[in-house]
Parts: sequence; C-alpha cells; structure tokens
Amino acid sequence: MAKAELLLLAVVSTLSVLPFSSLAVYQDFCIADLAASATPGGYPCKPAKDVTADDFHYCGLGSPGTALKPFKISLGSTIVTMFPGLNGLGISAERMVMVPGSATPLHSHPGGTELIYVVEGSVVSGFISAALNRVYTKTLYVGDLMVLPRGQLHFQYSHGNATAVTLSSFSSDNPGLQILDFALFANDLPTEVMNKVTTLDELQVIKLKAWFGGRG
Amino acid sequence: MAKAELLLLAVVSTLSVLPFSSLAVYQDFCIADLAASATPGGYPCKPAKDVTADDFHYCGLGSPGTALKPFKISLGSTIVTMFPGLNGLGISAERMVMVPGSATPLHSHPGGTELIYVVEGSVVSGFISAALNRVYTKTLYVGDLMVLPRGQLHFQYSHGNATAVTLSSFSSDNPGLQILDFALFANDLPTEVMNKVTTLDELQVIKLKAWFGGRG
Amino acid sequence: MAKAELLLLAVVSTLSVLPFSSLAVYQDFCIADLAASATPGGYPCKPAKDVTADDFHYCGLGSPGTALKPFKISLGSTIVTMFPGLNGLGISAERMVMVPGSATPLHSHPGGTELIYVVEGSVVSGFISAALNRVYTKTLYVGDLMVLPRGQLHFQYSHGNATAVTLSSFSSDNPGLQILDFALFANDLPTEVMNKVTTLDELQVIKLKAWFGGRG
Amino acid sequence: MAKAELLLLAVVSTLSVLPFSSLAVYQDFCIADLAASATPGGYPCKPAKDVTADDFHYCGLGSPGTALKPFKISLGSTIVTMFPGLNGLGISAERMVMVPGSATPLHSHPGGTELIYVVEGSVVSGFISAALNRVYTKTLYVGDLMVLPRGQLHFQYSHGNATAVTLSSFSSDNPGLQILDFALFANDLPTEVMNKVTTLDELQVIKLKAWFGGRG
Amino acid sequence: MAKAELLLLAVVSTLSVLPFSSLAVYQDFCIADLAASATPGGYPCKPAKDVTADDFHYCGLGSPGTALKPFKISLGSTIVTMFPGLNGLGISAERMVMVPGSATPLHSHPGGTELIYVVEGSVVSGFISAALNRVYTKTLYVGDLMVLPRGQLHFQYSHGNATAVTLSSFSSDNPGLQILDFALFANDLPTEVMNKVTTLDELQVIKLKAWFGGRG
Amino acid sequence: MAKAELLLLAVVSTLSVLPFSSLAVYQDFCIADLAASATPGGYPCKPAKDVTADDFHYCGLGSPGTALKPFKISLGSTIVTMFPGLNGLGISAERMVMVPGSATPLHSHPGGTELIYVVEGSVVSGFISAALNRVYTKTLYVGDLMVLPRGQLHFQYSHGNATAVTLSSFSSDNPGLQILDFALFANDLPTEVMNKVTTLDELQVIKLKAWFGGRG
Repeated sequence: MAKAELLLLAVVSTLSVLPFSSLAVYQDFCIADLAASATPGGYPCKPAKDVTADDFHYCGLGSPGTALKPFKISLGSTIVTMFPGLNGLGISAERMVMVPGSATPLHSHPGGTELIYVVEGSVVSGFISAALNRVYTKTLYVGDLMVLPRGQLHFQYSHGNATAVTLSSFSSDNPGLQILDFALFANDLPTEVMNKVTTLDELQVIKLKAWFGGRG
Repeated sequence: MAKAELLLLAVVSTLSVLPFSSLAVYQDFCIADLAASATPGGYPCKPAKDVTADDFHYCGLGSPGTALKPFKISLGSTIVTMFPGLNGLGISAERMVMVPGSATPLHSHPGGTELIYVVEGSVVSGFISAALNRVYTKTLYVGDLMVLPRGQLHFQYSHGNATAVTLSSFSSDNPGLQILDFALFANDLPTEVMNKVTTLDELQVIKLKAWFGGRG
Repeated sequence: MAKAELLLLAVVSTLSVLPFSSLAVYQDFCIADLAASATPGGYPCKPAKDVTADDFHYCGLGSPGTALKPFKISLGSTIVTMFPGLNGLGISAERMVMVPGSATPLHSHPGGTELIYVVEGSVVSGFISAALNRVYTKTLYVGDLMVLPRGQLHFQYSHGNATAVTLSSFSSDNPGLQILDFALFANDLPTEVMNKVTTLDELQVIKLKAWFGGRG
Repeated sequence: MAKAELLLLAVVSTLSVLPFSSLAVYQDFCIADLAASATPGGYPCKPAKDVTADDFHYCGLGSPGTALKPFKISLGSTIVTMFPGLNGLGISAERMVMVPGSATPLHSHPGGTELIYVVEGSVVSGFISAALNRVYTKTLYVGDLMVLPRGQLHFQYSHGNATAVTLSSFSSDNPGLQILDFALFANDLPTEVMNKVTTLDELQVIKLKAWFGGRG
Repeated sequence: MAKAELLLLAVVSTLSVLPFSSLAVYQDFCIADLAASATPGGYPCKPAKDVTADDFHYCGLGSPGTALKPFKISLGSTIVTMFPGLNGLGISAERMVMVPGSATPLHSHPGGTELIYVVEGSVVSGFISAALNRVYTKTLYVGDLMVLPRGQLHFQYSHGNATAVTLSSFSSDNPGLQILDFALFANDLPTEVMNKVTTLDELQVIKLKAWFGGRG
Repeated sequence: MAKAELLLLAVVSTLSVLPFSSLAVYQDFCIADLAASATPGGYPCKPAKDVTADDFHYCGLGSPGTALKPFKISLGSTIVTMFPGLNGLGISAERMVMVPGSATPLHSHPGGTELIYVVEGSVVSGFISAALNRVYTKTLYVGDLMVLPRGQLHFQYSHGNATAVTLSSFSSDNPGLQILDFALFANDLPTEVMNKVTTLDELQVIKLKAWFGGRG
C-alpha cells in the first residue's frame, strides 16, 4: 500500500493539469434540442456545456393532466417532445387518473410496448392480440403490472368504486398513440369510405363523426 | 504479372487441401427451423449443410390467394412462418387481387412498414396518421408506390372498372396484421366493454359481432 | 350502405369457415420459456396456444420487497427472469421503499436507462456523468420523474421525514444491476489488487470486505 | 349504453376545444429533408405541417428505367434519396426489365437483403454464399420470390424467349449497390494492383478497364 | 459517519444470508453453446454456473495462422464460432502477417466494418466505395488505423521490405468474409454464366477456375 | 463469349455517358461533421464530395499517449470525436502502454464491449460480473485476447518485468469511459453523500478527493 500512496502523492500536483476529460469524451446522454429538426434516430443534442440537472428532471406528471371527457379519464404523459432528457434513451411515461365509471378509449402505441402499474385503486386492463384475435384481460390491483405488447389495441376501464391512478412506462421515448375513435371519427375520411373499409353502418359513422369532430 | 502467375502456379496443388472454409465460416443466412421454438430475434437456424436453393425460393404468391369475402379481395402473403428463408432478414411480401368494388378492411401491421406497388389496374390507398389524425390518400396507377408507415391504420379500395393487382413488401419478416373488424367483432370481448371503449352503439356491435363471428 | 350490407350478409355463412388466422399469424409477443436456454436476443417463446392472460400480468411489486439492510431500503423488481411476459419487449420495472435516513447504494444498470417516478414522499436522486465527471442531482417530489442514462453510476437518498416510494422503469427487459459496494467488497478480488486498481487504502478494503462478505 | 350516450352528448360541445393533438404528438413518419445533411440514422425530417399525401407516393417505377447497356437490362429504383417518404422506414424497391439474352451484372447490396418477385416472364436468379462458397440458383416464374441475403454477390439472367419484369424490395431505405465490374474496371485502381489482389490477368484488366471507363 | 458505521455493523451478521443475487440476476454475457442451433441473434447461452474465466479468453491469434498461399499472407481470425465468449457482443478480431510481396485478395465482410491497425511494418490499404465507385487508398505505418466500412470491397498489400503484422477488429462477432476470387472461381457456377454476369473472358474464367478449384 | 464481346463493344462509346452514379447512390459511409450537433445516432455527414482517403485514416495511436500518472499507464484512444471516419460504424480503438508495476484504474465502458489484445509483454486482465458478483481474471500473453462485456467494471495490471503494450477495440464508435476513482473522487459530490451511498469512510473519501481533485 505504501507504494500506492507514494504514487498518489505524485498525483496531487499533477492531476489538476491532467486532461482527464480527454480520456472520457463520451456521449453519455443527448438532451434534445427541440428547436432543431428531428431525425429518425432522435433530435440533435443540446451542447453538453449547457446541460444542467434540470434537463434530466420532469415535474409535470403528478398534476391532474388533460381530461379526456367522453371517457372520464385524465392523462399526463411525457415523451421526448416534452421532456428532452429522454432523447434517444428508449423510455417515457404516462400517468392516468380513472374515476369510477371511466375507461380509456381503445388505442395502440405504434412505436412501443406499455407496462402499466397500478398506484391506487384497481382497473381492468386488456389487449387484443392481432395474431390470434384473442383478448387477454386482467383485473389489476395496487402494485400489479400488466404488459401490453407494441402495436396491439388495448384498453382499461375502472373497477370498483374508488378512483384509480396508474403509471405506465413505454419502451420508446416517443411511443405514439392512435386512439381508435379519433382515427375513425375525428378526421375527414369520407363516411362512404369508412363504411367500405370498416363495415360500420353509415348512420353510426355520421353520428360519431358529429361527436368527435370529423368531417365528410 | 509474371510474378503473380508463378504464385498461382504454386496454388494448383495446394488449394485442394487448403481449409478455405475455415477462413469463411459465417452465418450468411439462417433458414428458420420452424419445428423449434422461436425467440424474439427469430427462429433457430436449420443446419447449413441441409440448406438448398429451395430454401431461398417461394412459389405461392402468384396464385389467387385467400379470399376475404366481405371485402371482395384475395390475399397471398408470405412471412417467415411460410417462407423460412426470410428468417432474420427483415423483409416479407404480400400480393393482393382487388376486383371492382372491393376494399381492404382498415388494418395495421404492428411490426413493419408496408410499401405497396401496383402491378395491374389502379387502387386508392390511404393511411390515418396517429400523430396528426390526418388521412393521407392517393390514387395509385400501374408502377406507382405508396409507403404506409409502421403501425398506422391503412386501407385500399378499388378504383375504376378493372381488377387491380398489387404487391406489397414489408420491413419485417413477420410484420403482423391487425384487421380492425376482426379485432373488434370476431372475438369474445363483451359488447358492453366494446361500447365503453369505442363509443360504438351496442346494436352496431351486436350486428357486426354476428357477422364476424364474435361472441359476448 | 345497402351494398355493404349485402356484402356482409354474404359473410354470415362463410366467415365461420374462413381461415382468418392464416391472414394473421404473427409473433405479437413471445412469453419466455425460462426452462430453455436464453439467447443474446432473449428466451425462446412458450407455445402461443398455452399463453393466457396471466402471462402478461405480474403481481409482486406492491409488496415490501427485499430489504437491503445496510442502506435501509426495500426493493421489488421484475425483469424477464421473473416476469416472462416482458421477453423481448425492452421494458421492466422496480419499486423501492425508502424510510427516512435510507439511501440506495451507488450503482449502475449496464443494460438500460432508468426512469424514476416518485409515488410517495420525496427523494434526492443523482447520477455521475462519465464523460464530464459531473454530478447531476435533483430533489424529486411526488409526481416527479428523473432519467438516469444507461450505464451511469447513480444513487438516491431519502429527503425529509416521511417514507418515500418510487417506481422505476427500465429500457430493457433485463437492465442489469452493478452495486458498487458488492462489486468492490463482496467477492474474492484480492485486497492488494483492489488497492492497486482503486487506490482505496487496504485497511478500508479489508474493513468493507468484512462487512460485505468478500474474501481475499 | 344509455350511460355512454350521455357521456358522449357531453362531448359534442367540448371536443372542439380539447387539445387532442397534445395526446398524440408522435413521429409517425419522418419525410427526409434532402437539402439537409444526412446522419447515420437517416435524414432530418421535413416539418410535419408541410407534409402532404404526395410525400408518401412515388410514381416513377413503372417507366422503362435506366438502360444498363452491356447487360441489356433496364432498371428503375427508388431509395430514400429519390423517395424521401422512405426515410428511416427500412424499405425500398427496384423494378427491372430483362429482354431475352440479358443479365444483371454480378453485384451486392452492402446494406440490405433483396426479395425479388417476378411480375412477368421468367428469370434465373442466384447468389454466391460467402460462408460456404456455394452457389444457390433457381429459375423463377411469374409469382415466384427469391430472397438474396444481405451483402452476398448475386445475379439474374433471362430465361426463355419473353421479356421478364421483376420487382425487388430491400430491407433498407438505402441498400447500396456494388456492381462488380464497375468496382473492378470503372475506377482508377492501378492495373498492377488489381492483378495483385484479384489474380486477373493484366491484359484482361486492361481490356475491361477500356470497356468500363477505368483508368490506370 | 458514525451513523453509517452503525448501519454497517448491523450488516455483518445479515449480509451472509441476504439474497444478493436476487437483486442482480442479469445476463451480463452469453457464452455461446456452439452445440445448439444458432438464431439470427446469436447462439443460445451456456449455463451461467458453468462459465469460467477461460470463456472470455482466446489464445490462438499470436500464432502464424492459416497460410493463404497464392497471396503469401497468413491469417488468424477469431469469430464467435471459435471464441464463444464473443456471442452477442458485436466484436471480433483478426491478425495478419504479410511478407514482402504479399497481398490480401480483394474481399468484403458482409456483416461488419473492419478497423485495421498496423502492429509491425507498413502496408497499403484501400477500399472501393460502392456509391461513388472511388478507391480510397492509404499507406499505413506502425500505429496507424484505417476504417473499412461494412460490405465494401477492400484489399491490402505489403509496402517496403519488411514483414508487416496487422490486427483488425470487426463490428460484429461474425462479420463474414467474401473473398472475390473464391466467390468467382472456386465454386461450380458455369463458366458461361460467369462470363455473362461479369464480362470476364471465358478463357480467363477457365484458367482461374483451374487455379482456385472451381468446376463448370 | 462472342455475344458478350459484341455487347461490350457497344459499351465502349456509351459507358462514359451512362449515369452510373444514379444506379449506386448510397451512403456507404458517413464521415462525421464534428462542427454540427450530434444526434443519438451519430453526427451529420460531411458532404460526400469532400471526402478523401484521409478521412478513413488515423495516425495517432502509435505515439506514447496520455500519461495517467497515478496508475503509471499511457493511453491513446480514438473514438468518433477524434476519428470522424468511425461515425455510425460501431467500432473504435485504444492502445495502452503498461510499465512494470502499472495498473489501469477500475473502470467501465457504458456504451460498448472491449476486446483487448496483447501486442507486447503480458498483463493480468479481469472484470467483475454484475449479475453473479464474480471476478473473472486471466493472465494474457502476446497474441492473447480477452473480451470484457459491455458496462462491466474491469481492470488490468502489469505482469512480469517487461513493459506491455495492448490494443483494445470497442463495439461502439463512442464506448464511453467511467473511471471509478474519478467518478468517486474528482467531482463535487459531498463527502457525506459519498459516505452514505458507498459506505466508504469519510476520511478515506476526503483523502482521495484531495488526491483526485474533488471538492465537497
């Protein structure tokens, strides 16, 4: 040990001039510069010298979130376009509050798998497997997890008489969200075409387009 | 050049005993052994010594394919479970025949992007972008291509009075297929739940469950 | 619409014999067969016919977890070897309970990024960036998130007088865990070598090896 | 269902002010901005607001294509630099017209696997496996497919007396193309070096350099 | 510090019974079980309990290697099929000895980039870019590196009067090797076809097939 | 063959005007433009027309390198920020000189696996597996390799009385480097926190912070 200490004594005066950083230049992270154009692999990085601890921190998920009225849920989600520190790291999160009688609309995340965790209350969660056209449903209680594989249509609805809170994480910093009702009834795909490609009755389509703000 | 030739003369007797293969052991391909269990990365490989040219060849796409009656289309597709030579190579294909008045049901491929090419006739093709909730639609003629990004709901319907033939390729050897009507109406998700998570009228759900074979 | 209905009437009798599944054979998921050997890409899949909703469900995270006594924390984590439904899906989770005065030992996850969310109480969380040798630290309150990039040494310690509960998710179904103290002091790397490669005093190493169960 | 309808009635007035897009901001696609510098992961994206259906459409493949005279084939291909909608999506396509007596020059695609489909006529297709130094050859008829694994040297030549048309797709939006004759004889690698590294006779090299436009 | 020590005193008796491993079950590595079938993602793993330090060690590269007589080089390479510890880790290596007057045959690695380093002597190294059909050549001296991008045809030849030794590493545990002469002249692709797809004179093909052991 | 020659005669006058490049536009490589912002997938590419052979060449590794005094080693490393030709290619290198009595500090590479090769002398090399908390150590002689899996803490120390030289390659163009002593003792993480998260004695921490330049 004495030898090591002698070596180390020699370090005291020299280390301050040693170019440590030259041994360790590395892109440990890449905080998104959201003002620049994205690429298929993510956003360009903010200069490392401008990065602070705040870039790794997001403090908006605990608040009530955006109400999705027809379904009585409130959602707060954070993906790379809201939390630039997630850029390129393959993860993001969403918090949901479900009052009794609420449900999530049937939806999918084209870009990632969801792992839902129950923080409070209980919910019923399920997904429809494309391959087998089977529905896998479970009632989840506090502390339970359910995995909803990438791209599969899935849903939750409240269970019992208490408000439930869930926290979901995704295997992408930008998993996407395709809500079926909005995809079907909130845009300008003509009713006639919608009928042709879904076999939904035209009257049904017209009614729901009126509700969801679609045209045509 | 003379020098090279002399070198080469020396080769004549030696090359037959040179272990060339020891310089070149490489997994150029991995023909799926479909009798073994798949992994998330694909199927185990058939032994290289048993591989023949037939393993790289698939000859079923030109035939009429499987009729999807309610939509009047015929589909022939080949993914890794039908064409083991595609294993791990990130590509597959599908051929579709559309008679006048036909349409593809609204669907998505959770695992890959589709690139559709018109071989004969013309079709209208479109997809619904999840992010912007916009519909992008084009009429495609012989020789045209349209790209349908991964996981987005899309459709085609016939255009004009002639039968159309398309060839689609996918950026996966197993892109998946989630046909919306089958997901909604061909399984046992209870009608009440379906109403809750889609806002579709229960009568509509019951009617289409009857047509598509769903229960509940 | 009438035309569509006629088409659909034709379906009633035919759909029951249509080989729907042949249009949709797809590996939507791959439940790990933990009895088989893993590959670098994950475990072989359990046969699809044996899959039930239970395979997508994990119900152990809400319980107190494993106590890590020297640090006064309790951990419950679920990775693919405990929750086979995560296989190949690039996500996993961990729940931690921190009583006042507790801390996580300095550690890293070689295989994934961590996204920590505060469910109850508050904690101080930080990581040491390898590239810049800077420490990024934040105090996190209920509803806050912090991202801890892959492979970086990080830590948490309790803040305030209340017990904190956190839920972390990871961008891998098997992110790994290298706890520094265990790496340094719980194995048989000789003290002399440890001194040489860390400059830690031998007496310090000997003392901590005794505490953590190391030999040599 | 009545409950759901009541909920929905509440939506009518509110949905028009709901920030739907905030629930669904997602990079569903990334149309290449070809005026910007590429990255290893693809081109930066054109702003989403400027994207139209035209960006997903390519209409040049049906035309005769570029004649490759010495080989009597005509090629039309579309990769990301011609069809910006392919950016980051891992797929591209090529159409080839082969008159009787034509052949493709031996070539490889360093960046992707090819899946060739016969639209008209018939062709002989083959590749040389690097690992086993074996040649796998098949005669392909209308509707047949052959997969040519990434990076392997391959070729086609016409079969029979009719013109053949093929459509190939690639597992990359930029698979690359290394035509052997051009690599060997159309650049300025000195003849002496070429002889040394290929054992081709210098006279042969000089003759083919003259044909293919090489120097040195 | 006193508080920490007290905590630690509590550890002494408990740590020996703490299930440390349950906190750290992770696939840090996956030693190939070469007796099992490979998958596109690599070989199944040898059981972790059977792994020893020897599995991470390879000691054959320093020896002379396999002589490639016509080119006067000696090669020693180690890929996953020879060094199972590389399985899934994306790296491998090759050592080459070049006597004066030697050359590597023109070749490519379909599965990986090569980074060549000169240990002794000097060599000329170059590659032919497929995209631009340009040749990039450099003379490399002791301590120099050259990068040869994936799938591009490349070569080296000796420089000066001393034997050179190089060490190459690859960005794959199985980068593949397609030696042009062997691909062209060491298999049974008929001479007539070779002429058609390469424009090489038939006499040239026949001569080199004789040298390299090809038939047909 | 006569037919082929006739075809080729036709080529002589035409090839010079044939748009060869239009058949082969491909991103064979992407030389980093280090003046632009990086993305998670690498740096934007320098324009292809400005690329020269120098971009693929690095000539600084043979020199003595940067001395790391306390450990008596000299390191020369080249990653993408020093050698722009490596951009996106997944490989980099490092050369180390170890005099007798030297050691590398315990460290990890968060972004890649290391493959170490002994050029001269001999060294002892080892790593600490996170999963099993086992140490795998081997003495390496000239020509030996050892693989050190991604993210695992590892070390080398000199063996015998001669200077050793090693060449390491990495499975990333930017593998990162987290030297434990610098992470622990060269920044401003407060001593009290360090004690809490490592159980190292405060006096030990203070002593080493003084040596390595840390504050707090």
